[in-house]
Amino acid sequence: MDNFTFFNPTRVEFGKGKEQFIGQHLADHGIKKVLLCYGSDRIKRDGLFGVVGKSLDEHGIQFVECGGIVSNPVLSKVREAIALARGQQVEAILSVGGGSVLDSSKAIAAGVRYAGDVWDLFIGKASIDGALPVFDILTLAATGSEMNNGAVVTNEVTQEKFAIGSVHTYPKVSIVNPALMKTVSRDYLVYSAADVIAHAIEGYFTATAEPRFQSRLVEAIINTVIETTETLLADPDDYDARAEFAWASTQALNGLIYAGISGYSYPNHMIEHALSALFNVPHGAGLSVVMPAWMKWYHGRNPVQFQRFAKYVFGVDSAEQGIAALEKWFDRIGTPTRLSQLGITEADLPKTIDNVLGNAVYFGVAEIYTREVVTTILKSAL
Amino acid sequence: MDNFTFFNPTRVEFGKGKEQFIGQHLADHGIKKVLLCYGSDRIKRDGLFGVVGKSLDEHGIQFVECGGIVSNPVLSKVREAIALARGQQVEAILSVGGGSVLDSSKAIAAGVRYAGDVWDLFIGKASIDGALPVFDILTLAATGSEMNNGAVVTNEVTQEKFAIGSVHTYPKVSIVNPALMKTVSRDYLVYSAADVIAHAIEGYFTATAEPRFQSRLVEAIINTVIETTETLLADPDDYDARAEFAWASTQALNGLIYAGISGYSYPNHMIEHALSALFNVPHGAGLSVVMPAWMKWYHGRNPVQFQRFAKYVFGVDSAEQGIAALEKWFDRIGTPTRLSQLGITEADLPKTIDNVLGNAVYFGVAEIYTREVVTTILKSAL
Repeated sequence: MDNFTFFNPTRVEFGKGKEQFIGQHLADHGIKKVLLCYGSDRIKRDGLFGVVGKSLDEHGIQFVECGGIVSNPVLSKVREAIALARGQQVEAILSVGGGSVLDSSKAIAAGVRYAGDVWDLFIGKASIDGALPVFDILTLAATGSEMNNGAVVTNEVTQEKFAIGSVHTYPKVSIVNPALMKTVSRDYLVYSAADVIAHAIEGYFTATAEPRFQSRLVEAIINTVIETTETLLADPDDYDARAEFAWASTQALNGLIYAGISGYSYPNHMIEHALSALFNVPHGAGLSVVMPAWMKWYHGRNPVQFQRFAKYVFGVDSAEQGIAALEKWFDRIGTPTRLSQLGITEADLPKTIDNVLGNAVYFGVAEIYTREVVTTILKSAL
Repeated sequence: MDNFTFFNPTRVEFGKGKEQFIGQHLADHGIKKVLLCYGSDRIKRDGLFGVVGKSLDEHGIQFVECGGIVSNPVLSKVREAIALARGQQVEAILSVGGGSVLDSSKAIAAGVRYAGDVWDLFIGKASIDGALPVFDILTLAATGSEMNNGAVVTNEVTQEKFAIGSVHTYPKVSIVNPALMKTVSRDYLVYSAADVIAHAIEGYFTATAEPRFQSRLVEAIINTVIETTETLLADPDDYDARAEFAWASTQALNGLIYAGISGYSYPNHMIEHALSALFNVPHGAGLSVVMPAWMKWYHGRNPVQFQRFAKYVFGVDSAEQGIAALEKWFDRIGTPTRLSQLGITEADLPKTIDNVLGNAVYFGVAEIYTREVVTTILKSAL
């Protein structure tokens, strides 16, 4: 097992009604004024905004609204919010939404404390030396952002979907109430399932050495996602399934399954980020297209692990059968497995490949993911 | 799933050579003088004490020695160390050893900050309002104390083995170098295996509602412990097996597998604490005696979960077969499964039962664990 540091200071407040106490958590950190980030006005219609506002009021906490954050969140909005946060002299960022709102919030929090342009932090031109404290109420379980320090944002001008991460960008308190997720659409539920599975498998398949304990944790996550997704498709109101799905999602990217494993990379995310950046496809939908195609190209490099996957996730014998079973499961739940389902055609491949190759440099795997390899993978996904 | 808070601020520094940096970690926290707690002089003979001293010296950190902490650590020693820590005005406690040294260190850390007698904190007469920061270098993986806030100490006068826990008693930094554990004796390796399995199963079997995700995590831990124990019995120098064992041990009691589960208790620990308190048996050895006996009495109350255990841990069909397989495995690795192997006879039962009944009140399960029930369980373990 590789040497590692495990440190995750986020407090997760998980369960029914926990959002009512957001004001208390902010007050516990001495916060008097926050930037309240969110996506659409849905949180106003469904009552969540009112609950949050009431809790903030009760603790004498002022808030400045910053709505309109979109999925595949964009740099221009982050820059706009940084200006607003500075102008209003807020002391913290409160994210109410899914991973896109939370990732934007982390970028805003770091950007406020950096004198230059926030994109510098994404391209390695500057490091994150501080950030406003981030708090969140999660309304969609998928990205794991609620218990890690990462944030992914798309630069619309350069069409780059890049990431930041720093010890300063862990959320202080993340409120995860699965009951708030029952209105997630069918589409976003299945995209989220694909996203969690993608987080779980990247290290599992690409590590040069993966301890069996970590493999077992990954299989626990994937089996739980498969099982609870099926339960939720049949009954979106099943609280326990919603809760297990959400907690498995958190565990998939909070550092636990990556602790101690060697030499891994994130090829599926690397490829998918091109699809999101260029075609604005939902991240999870892009991932369910990329994963089977990548697996078909990759599995010969790690046959033992692909046989584990086949056996312990789908109860089948060979790597090929395991991959086919995953693709079939994606088809069955209704998340795409072909680029054509995303509206991406062969004519789009050249610019897609170019974007992936840029990501390959960014992800540090350009030697493996050559033009030829990326072309092979993407063509098999058409 | 039950509502829960997950918050674990301990930084785990895991891997080879990490103990060399202990001075840096203390310096990062502004510490200038520590109480260095340890057990026997073994750490002086094997070089660890020298490595620690050198690292402290390099960072200008003074240390006061407090050796001689025994397994099943005792209250008198904790009191003595509190007086020493106060007299020497140390700013932190540094534990170098296994769970007993670390548990003592937590108790010392809390006791220094409490004006009355430290035992008050164990019996609920006072709450822990603060503690000196605790740092540790772990030399035995078993108790999970390196990533939780709990500490168990025996009051030799009252023969009570009780526990404390507080947000103030999480270690700041825990150094877990599996290479330091290769000199652990064969006996302590197998006792540790039993201890980790006990931590994993308490909630798994006793929860009134156990989500499948948490069950899968528990099975991942137990399967890893079984596998790596067998590897280590054959080859004590297998670093990766030592590392997986250690990390599984940490995960068994860091809050993860207990998050969101309902209505659980710690009956095996409750019973075993009587054996340790009265007869000073190694905690893990006591647990390997108690577990099969408790399971035989209990399994009818949770047949579904015992069938899971049988299937996913030992690949057998029934609860009874699963319990028999565990007992057989304990026998095979050489950890006791009978009270007689611990030198405890039928004549010792009355006082043992009385002690367990006291613990049952302390653990809040006196309604279930009546004299009749405890007698049944202990008699079946003779």
